[in-house]
Amino acid sequence: MATSNDKKAIALHKKLKGKIRVMPAAPVRNRKDLALVYTPGVAAVSSLVAQKPELAREYTVKGRMVAVISDGSAVLGLGNIGALGALPVMEGKSAIFKTFADVDAVPIVLDTQNTDEIVDTVLRIAPAFGGINLEDIAAPKCFEVERRVIEKLNIPVMHDDQHGTAIVVLAGLINALKVVKKKLETARIVISGAGAAGTATANLLRAAGARYIIVLDSKGIIDEHRPEPHKRELAEFTNPEKKTGGLREALEGADVLIGVSGPGLATAADIKTMNPKSIVFALANPTPEIMPDEAKKGGAAVVGTGRSDFPNQINNSLAFPGIFRGALDHKVSKITQEVKLKAAYAIAGLVKKLNAQKIVPDMFDKRVAKAVAKVIR
Amino acid sequence: MATSNDKKAIALHKKLKGKIRVMPAAPVRNRKDLALVYTPGVAAVSSLVAQKPELAREYTVKGRMVAVISDGSAVLGLGNIGALGALPVMEGKSAIFKTFADVDAVPIVLDTQNTDEIVDTVLRIAPAFGGINLEDIAAPKCFEVERRVIEKLNIPVMHDDQHGTAIVVLAGLINALKVVKKKLETARIVISGAGAAGTATANLLRAAGARYIIVLDSKGIIDEHRPEPHKRELAEFTNPEKKTGGLREALEGADVLIGVSGPGLATAADIKTMNPKSIVFALANPTPEIMPDEAKKGGAAVVGTGRSDFPNQINNSLAFPGIFRGALDHKVSKITQEVKLKAAYAIAGLVKKLNAQKIVPDMFDKRVAKAVAKVIR
Repeated sequence: MATSNDKKAIALHKKLKGKIRVMPAAPVRNRKDLALVYTPGVAAVSSLVAQKPELAREYTVKGRMVAVISDGSAVLGLGNIGALGALPVMEGKSAIFKTFADVDAVPIVLDTQNTDEIVDTVLRIAPAFGGINLEDIAAPKCFEVERRVIEKLNIPVMHDDQHGTAIVVLAGLINALKVVKKKLETARIVISGAGAAGTATANLLRAAGARYIIVLDSKGIIDEHRPEPHKRELAEFTNPEKKTGGLREALEGADVLIGVSGPGLATAADIKTMNPKSIVFALANPTPEIMPDEAKKGGAAVVGTGRSDFPNQINNSLAFPGIFRGALDHKVSKITQEVKLKAAYAIAGLVKKLNAQKIVPDMFDKRVAKAVAKVIR
Repeated sequence: MATSNDKKAIALHKKLKGKIRVMPAAPVRNRKDLALVYTPGVAAVSSLVAQKPELAREYTVKGRMVAVISDGSAVLGLGNIGALGALPVMEGKSAIFKTFADVDAVPIVLDTQNTDEIVDTVLRIAPAFGGINLEDIAAPKCFEVERRVIEKLNIPVMHDDQHGTAIVVLAGLINALKVVKKKLETARIVISGAGAAGTATANLLRAAGARYIIVLDSKGIIDEHRPEPHKRELAEFTNPEKKTGGLREALEGADVLIGVSGPGLATAADIKTMNPKSIVFALANPTPEIMPDEAKKGGAAVVGTGRSDFPNQINNSLAFPGIFRGALDHKVSKITQEVKLKAAYAIAGLVKKLNAQKIVPDMFDKRVAKAVAKVIR
């Protein structure tokens, strides 16, 4: 069922025929311009960069260009729709990169979903890029792809579905906890979803000081008996009370619910079993795990979603543009947990008059990417 | 020794920090814009394109974006300087694509020079692109890479060092022959260079009707005993009189010399052994095989070079922008010999008042890319 926004989006895409344009940085008006931008002048620049590869960041697009790469295996909530289906999303991301942080981002979609082939391809096209934003790659493949590419490259590589989400969740949570006067170290946190976003969020919250985290997947609370290695790793530091069961068991006495799974997860009755002044982030898009009014009916004091039509939009766009901007500016070659923590605190720090309706800055607040970029060092 | 133009080029590149920018096609000013360009609206477009892949050309950058891909193995006259050294050239090419033909071109340089890996990588990143311009890949590898990529993809693929050069050489030759009142079918043509450009030029001139072609490499006139398969293929249709020897033997009684090899090839004395009203294209850059005044001293009636500071600049920029523009506009998926012939005749046809100083249109003549694009069908 196409909404009116869907119809408008389709019409706009048809009109634009692609959401990005590749423009010359300086006009090529005549032979004189051409003799500098292209032959013969470019030969001097090519020789220079070939002799001193470290100068590529200063003399070529490597200092400003990021690849947004997907294999189309986990696109939005649409699932495995393949390379061409992923392309409009990667283009949108490129447009956001430029708009929010003046990063020149190129959408690349891959005609393979094989882990080795994805890794090889990313490594082979890396030289022209100053950073790699991996996008919409299904779990658990995304973990291995990212790890292997990071190991081999000396430019920043980030799978945004993992870390972009984790960073903005932490940013929102830092402020939400202030609103309800609770502490990250003692808060009981439940994460529904053990895919890319849930796994990275659990890891980052732990790095930030959280000590009580329970992660659930579709089979219930994650324990050390799960077949997937990344879930067994989660089990090592989560679920300290060794709870068993599903969402209801996990939520009882919890302070925070972070939904990164899908619609229809919880009801007001579930939220009622949580501690007073609970925090609910229901981030599935477009339909949250629980609608904000329902969460509030259950007693939630602070509610965030991924949507722009509710308060507290917990959206990756708060993080990724500034992170790559900062990494390019400061020649940061690895997006470590420390860097991610800094980014989360920078985002959270921008909200001065905190309240339950305002825990994260507006996505169009021009200070956001700058504040994030500043701390990526 | 850096020339003053070299110094200016280095300064400009340092100032620009990359010669292209990736811009949004429409401004992203607010949540409403974002809801169309990105989530939730983009999901409708992604679903549509995933269901009907043929719509990608209409709804995504696939309809306008070309990859300019090099492995850095044969960059300009600099040789095998690798991926980063090649990047400034690919960026320059991207700037020319946009300036001359409104094609959005992305520079991609590869961290591999292995044939299989180049082919695999190009195939895997192809989905986002409406065309592939292979560039500065050494012969004979370039022949296999291009052939295999063309076989697998249903978008236009062209190694410009081969076919761009061949097309503009043919365009120039058509007009030069008119100036000296000779015919392609009977002209005795000598090509110095059996690499990418020389091989493709021999093939295209033959397809255009030339019947007497001799090709030389550094070892002399090519015959069927050469170890390289592409040279043995050349021997099958060239050197009809079974001449042996080097340039002097080849040039004796020739009408046309096409140099795509390197500086210091020929002297006025060599040119004097050619037939009266000879044509000399000395296309090595920046230093031609023979300087124009020297060629004229030897009796050449028409001289062309690759340089902008002499008359008759035989430059690939006359061909490749319009070829890809036309292929995108008319959904042409293979750049066949027939298509290349059409392009050459379209370029040649733009010069109305032919004379020895004016055999090709000006590179900045805005009619060129349009005229070429029009015939790519």
